[in-house]
Amino acid sequence: MPENNVNRSISRVLEALDAALQSGDTAAAVELFQPDCYWRDLVAFTWNIKTMEGREQIAAMLDSQLGAIKPSKLKLAEEEEPATDANGVTQGWITFETDVARGSGFIRLKNGRIWTLLTTMAELKGHEEPKGQRRPMGAEHGARPDRTSWKENREAELDALGNSSQPYCLIVGGGQGGIGLGARLRQLGVPTIIIDKNARPGDAWRNRYKTLCLHDPVWYDHMPYLPFPDNWPVFTPKDKIGDWLEMYTKVMELNYWGSTNCKSARYDEAKGEWIVEVERDGRNITLRPKQLVLATGMSGKPNLPKFKGMDVFKGEQHHSSRHPGPDGYRDKKVVVIGANNSAHDICAALWEAGVDVTMVQRSSTHIVKSDSLMEFALGDLYSERAVAAGMTTAKADLTFASIPYAILHEFQIPVFNAIRERDADYYERLQKSGFMLDFGDDDSGLFMKYLRRGSGYYIDVGASELVANGKIKLKSGVDVVELKEHSVLLSDGSELEADVVVYATGYGSMNGWAADLISREVADKVGKVWGLGSNTTKDPGPWEGEQRNMWKPTQQPALWFHGGNLHQSRHYSQYLSLQLKARMEGIPTPVFGLQEVHHLS
Amino acid sequence: MPENNVNRSISRVLEALDAALQSGDTAAAVELFQPDCYWRDLVAFTWNIKTMEGREQIAAMLDSQLGAIKPSKLKLAEEEEPATDANGVTQGWITFETDVARGSGFIRLKNGRIWTLLTTMAELKGHEEPKGQRRPMGAEHGARPDRTSWKENREAELDALGNSSQPYCLIVGGGQGGIGLGARLRQLGVPTIIIDKNARPGDAWRNRYKTLCLHDPVWYDHMPYLPFPDNWPVFTPKDKIGDWLEMYTKVMELNYWGSTNCKSARYDEAKGEWIVEVERDGRNITLRPKQLVLATGMSGKPNLPKFKGMDVFKGEQHHSSRHPGPDGYRDKKVVVIGANNSAHDICAALWEAGVDVTMVQRSSTHIVKSDSLMEFALGDLYSERAVAAGMTTAKADLTFASIPYAILHEFQIPVFNAIRERDADYYERLQKSGFMLDFGDDDSGLFMKYLRRGSGYYIDVGASELVANGKIKLKSGVDVVELKEHSVLLSDGSELEADVVVYATGYGSMNGWAADLISREVADKVGKVWGLGSNTTKDPGPWEGEQRNMWKPTQQPALWFHGGNLHQSRHYSQYLSLQLKARMEGIPTPVFGLQEVHHLS
Repeated sequence: MPENNVNRSISRVLEALDAALQSGDTAAAVELFQPDCYWRDLVAFTWNIKTMEGREQIAAMLDSQLGAIKPSKLKLAEEEEPATDANGVTQGWITFETDVARGSGFIRLKNGRIWTLLTTMAELKGHEEPKGQRRPMGAEHGARPDRTSWKENREAELDALGNSSQPYCLIVGGGQGGIGLGARLRQLGVPTIIIDKNARPGDAWRNRYKTLCLHDPVWYDHMPYLPFPDNWPVFTPKDKIGDWLEMYTKVMELNYWGSTNCKSARYDEAKGEWIVEVERDGRNITLRPKQLVLATGMSGKPNLPKFKGMDVFKGEQHHSSRHPGPDGYRDKKVVVIGANNSAHDICAALWEAGVDVTMVQRSSTHIVKSDSLMEFALGDLYSERAVAAGMTTAKADLTFASIPYAILHEFQIPVFNAIRERDADYYERLQKSGFMLDFGDDDSGLFMKYLRRGSGYYIDVGASELVANGKIKLKSGVDVVELKEHSVLLSDGSELEADVVVYATGYGSMNGWAADLISREVADKVGKVWGLGSNTTKDPGPWEGEQRNMWKPTQQPALWFHGGNLHQSRHYSQYLSLQLKARMEGIPTPVFGLQEVHHLS
Repeated sequence: MPENNVNRSISRVLEALDAALQSGDTAAAVELFQPDCYWRDLVAFTWNIKTMEGREQIAAMLDSQLGAIKPSKLKLAEEEEPATDANGVTQGWITFETDVARGSGFIRLKNGRIWTLLTTMAELKGHEEPKGQRRPMGAEHGARPDRTSWKENREAELDALGNSSQPYCLIVGGGQGGIGLGARLRQLGVPTIIIDKNARPGDAWRNRYKTLCLHDPVWYDHMPYLPFPDNWPVFTPKDKIGDWLEMYTKVMELNYWGSTNCKSARYDEAKGEWIVEVERDGRNITLRPKQLVLATGMSGKPNLPKFKGMDVFKGEQHHSSRHPGPDGYRDKKVVVIGANNSAHDICAALWEAGVDVTMVQRSSTHIVKSDSLMEFALGDLYSERAVAAGMTTAKADLTFASIPYAILHEFQIPVFNAIRERDADYYERLQKSGFMLDFGDDDSGLFMKYLRRGSGYYIDVGASELVANGKIKLKSGVDVVELKEHSVLLSDGSELEADVVVYATGYGSMNGWAADLISREVADKVGKVWGLGSNTTKDPGPWEGEQRNMWKPTQQPALWFHGGNLHQSRHYSQYLSLQLKARMEGIPTPVFGLQEVHHLS
């Protein structure tokens, strides 16, 4: 880290902040912040995922936490590139310690005062992961009577866990979220079982429609510890990601129970443990984990609409999550209700197979071409170009995390304006076909829609052209009035003949899983999961500042929600795993600003 | 690459060499070399693996090859660290092109003239691997009627290859060598089948004795494309490397036929193809590959001694390669014939299981502690310290390859002298037990023994202490005279009671595999495989300069030998794959200095 003026100006502020924090001088600390300021903390200071907005909230956090957290050694990161200064913002990477942990983060100054501060927990002291210099030896050198082999030890663990010994943590849901979190917990030495109803890791992907590929590019999708190799496709086909997850589970030595249904879960407050009834390969087993993680997916619980006549309809009808792909529908007429990602993918695959398919668009959709998204929105952080410029996945994740949600849309609006300008012809063609477009309530585009509501968009990998040129038939601005025996009646009076109806109608809040597995009472106690409280469509206020209930303590002790796309699962599993590890080790975890509940679902 | 004096002094030599090579001026070219000089070429200039020693050999190579190879653009590598100057040697990384390829290498100057030059082929022009910027898209954007999915395409390939279509290359042997080569050929688009007698990839490891771990550390053992993660053990347990190879085979999409025996192979000279009879899961199949690679392992063909009385002995006897581990021998007396790696591992595991075990050492052994090897011999290139200092696996491989075999022992002797000094007490204790020690004929230690004869050493991970303190009983300096019904009679007249005899007596030359699969005639035509011709024990002269017959053309057209430890398999599979790809594409591959045959086995 070279000495330079920019470094010195940040270092002066960090030294002053470090001194104020160490002496518990909240007033002096907040004085170092701009009036318009943000402190985003991932577990390090708040044992929560929390953004403090403005000096008052920062002061409240510090007053609550400083005594317990005992921060120190706040300074510019020594092994990072030097701080930079551009457009009135001075910024750089930082490191710090607390009483129990080491952390890193990012700071931005305006006019010599802190505008944004990101603090994240990197590792717990004394519980560092066994990697690099700390990696295990594998072979124990020396000789010891009756030594057991790695295989014997591993088999003994698999036999014992859930039978003669109990997991500290149970993860329900073995998709990329549960698997990535399981890998981190394994490295931290937290005994964990992952259960999934499908037989093999990756089956949740394998069971989807046959042409599905990841919509996010490879650089955005790495799992923890084991990045995809250099020759991995940009957009992984679903069976290939399935194979990857299966081998990942194996080589990471995860305790993965496939073909296992979670039937019920109940929290025993007195004992501080869950009583979870599962059925594994037809056998009933009671597990008693201290912590329960629902990693059932933000898109896990299908939203099936209730249209009049669904019981009358004589054809086949299913939710998009159960759509088998086009092969069985060659001479059928298919109506797809919905116009988001799944609807587009399904319609395109049906058209490719020669099926007569109509998309019913009930409300407007945000469309963005995959290429444009990669070039304008992801390219600086997640791309071959970023890799060539020295950007690592860890740094990209922290950079993205360093922009508080309250102002993220301000960064996003110009990006999507640029895309809109570049692709103007394309959007015009699409609109001419009758397709209803939007860029979000405030034109902030894809990521904000994803963070706020997790729906309402399609990343175009080819289907929009089929909509524009009429190959996928479109009925837009209409709703479904009722289903008849062989047709769908729409609100404009038109009637679509249908042999098959696919409901690409999205998914409900994840606390719906808690209602199914635990109780309605616990689901309501926890409240809505996902969304920022942005007071935009499908994301009602009040403002939360973070995603509701994700990766952090909820109103239900020892119940956690994990998920999101591959990027979020990768990055936030770090903070969730550290929270779980700290609890297992009895490290104090004073939570600041526990999630409040404003909406039930 | 900063401008500096060292860079300039190398650049001047490279410019002069480049000019001489381009104008075909051999005399001017060799004038740039010292009288005592070495040019090691991996495929780029010679379409062979070849070291030219001295100006005369270099001139002969250039006269033969320049017209066809057309080298150009020889210069210091632009993205590497600057050249360095120490102890009278100026050295740096280089790049160059030929008519058909791009290459890289390393140069060392003494007194302004070239002392050592390494040239290696990195990629064939127009056949670059699809990685990084060239990686596949995975999802084809756009829409196309009757599009097939990744899975359908992969399944169609698996169905067709070896049935309706023939592989260009057949690899016999699916250990790490065959798998790594298969991965490279896949990336180069060379249709390949790997066959192995075991059911699953990795079984060759899984089937070994239970406490076996890799003796080389993780940094030395990475496979191509997909390095082990940061949390991988230093010494991988055998079942864990088995699992890794199995998943690697899957995610790299290799066409791997398990449970397949190669019964015979015959070269049809007229058609330029092999006729290979295999039995796959009990079904006979004839394959007709253009190229046949024997990746059956340098330690593949067991050397079973012929002692008098082996037919008389009433107990159990087996070669170390078939040793099942200690568990069945609790109350038995076991005699292990041999004192190299396998003998030590087997004896230690037997002692740990409480078995009465005696090691019979017939000739001296080189012993080196694993820790010392890692610290003194591997640390600069393959270690956590090397990684932290920016050393990549590719650079470490090239650095190691850059020292010609003719002088490698000069680099190795001081390393092993230092080890001998540091571990003097240890070696003294071992000798006091009667153990016969050596450091190779010229005290050059482990690597030279490995390269010359592939045997005669033990990397100590604990067994030597058991020998020194008598827990493993030792009979040394004796030979086996005969086996009796329940004992082994030794040349000093002593007799060892034995329920079990294990022959840890090593392996034969790999052309033994050619004799079994093809014919004695072809095996003799090819001659001995492995060794340098160093005129030391078990490596008779004349001097070869490279390992015999490995990874390069042999006297039998279209027959190749691949193998070695994980490091060699990784690195040399690159050159073997490029040679095979070039032949498939019809690129001229004029071989300079085809392997001569001086020994039959």
